[in-house]
Amino acid sequence: MSSIERFETNKRMSRVVKYNGCLYLSGLTADNPDEDVQGQTRSILGKIEKFLEAHGSSKDKLLTAQIWLKDIDRDFAGMNEVWDSWLPEGAAPTRATGESKLASPKLLVEIIVTAAV
Amino acid sequence: MSSIERFETNKRMSRVVKYNGCLYLSGLTADNPDEDVQGQTRSILGKIEKFLEAHGSSKDKLLTAQIWLKDIDRDFAGMNEVWDSWLPEGAAPTRATGESKLASPKLLVEIIVTAAV
Amino acid sequence: MSSIERFETNKRMSRVVKYNGCLYLSGLTADNPDEDVQGQTRSILGKIEKFLEAHGSSKDKLLTAQIWLKDIDRDFAGMNEVWDSWLPEGAAPTRATGESKLASPKLLVEIIVTAAV
Repeated sequence: MSSIERFETNKRMSRVVKYNGCLYLSGLTADNPDEDVQGQTRSILGKIEKFLEAHGSSKDKLLTAQIWLKDIDRDFAGMNEVWDSWLPEGAAPTRATGESKLASPKLLVEIIVTAAV
Repeated sequence: MSSIERFETNKRMSRVVKYNGCLYLSGLTADNPDEDVQGQTRSILGKIEKFLEAHGSSKDKLLTAQIWLKDIDRDFAGMNEVWDSWLPEGAAPTRATGESKLASPKLLVEIIVTAAV
Repeated sequence: MSSIERFETNKRMSRVVKYNGCLYLSGLTADNPDEDVQGQTRSILGKIEKFLEAHGSSKDKLLTAQIWLKDIDRDFAGMNEVWDSWLPEGAAPTRATGESKLASPKLLVEIIVTAAV
């Protein structure tokens, strides 16, 4: 099979791993955790877009996504509004969204994607 | 690599994405959220089976599954009973099951699978 | 495409599934649920290592991981300490960590990995 390429690797995780036609991204959270869910979602999607484009993919090549929200009752609609408007027409990945507390208390949303290269 | 095929795509997600020998399905929930966990699990597994068969796979080609339960202490056993009897002999995927509140309060279970084509 | 190989399969899940250059592992939990999060993490990582090596992979070929903690505020740091020291230099997978109650009350951590073969 193809070899494994890792990018932005530290002792805990790689931000990006490329293997066999797929680009795996780590779960991403917002740079500024004081923002509301829409601001955090925008921050995450901007980072996803940069990682994809830096490594031979793009947001119209997303295969699948998981979205974890700290408070799904409160923030599902707000996250969706930003998500829906960010996706290119006709290129939505499969998706699952659930509630999960995240690694630090102010984080409201974490998004994990896999894309094609 | 192979091209990406998307099915039942709206602005938020595709129900099914086919790429590179894998069929990714969105997290699926029950059509009737008034059912108990067994009814909801049956509904979901029926939908999974239809999606798989419509796109070149089948339930004996499942690779991996995640199962999210709203109340894992109460509903783990009930979900398992339906799940275990649905799977073909000798063809079980890898699986992980955790607790997560879901996108609407009455939803008790969501299942995400990836299958081979 | 390649065929699907399943290992340690029962009616509910396979511990390992090999397909198309990827090795999928079921979510793994500790053998002794009376241990603290560090003991449970060590137990899980030992099992992951054995499964990977038994089926043509190894811990320097990890692609992606999800880590589910029962109590992320209390146990994130302890889990990370064991995780960080277990990973080989320069070979970290992508990772996402969230909070989720698990299949039995004493389980503090579950880890799901996919590796290359």
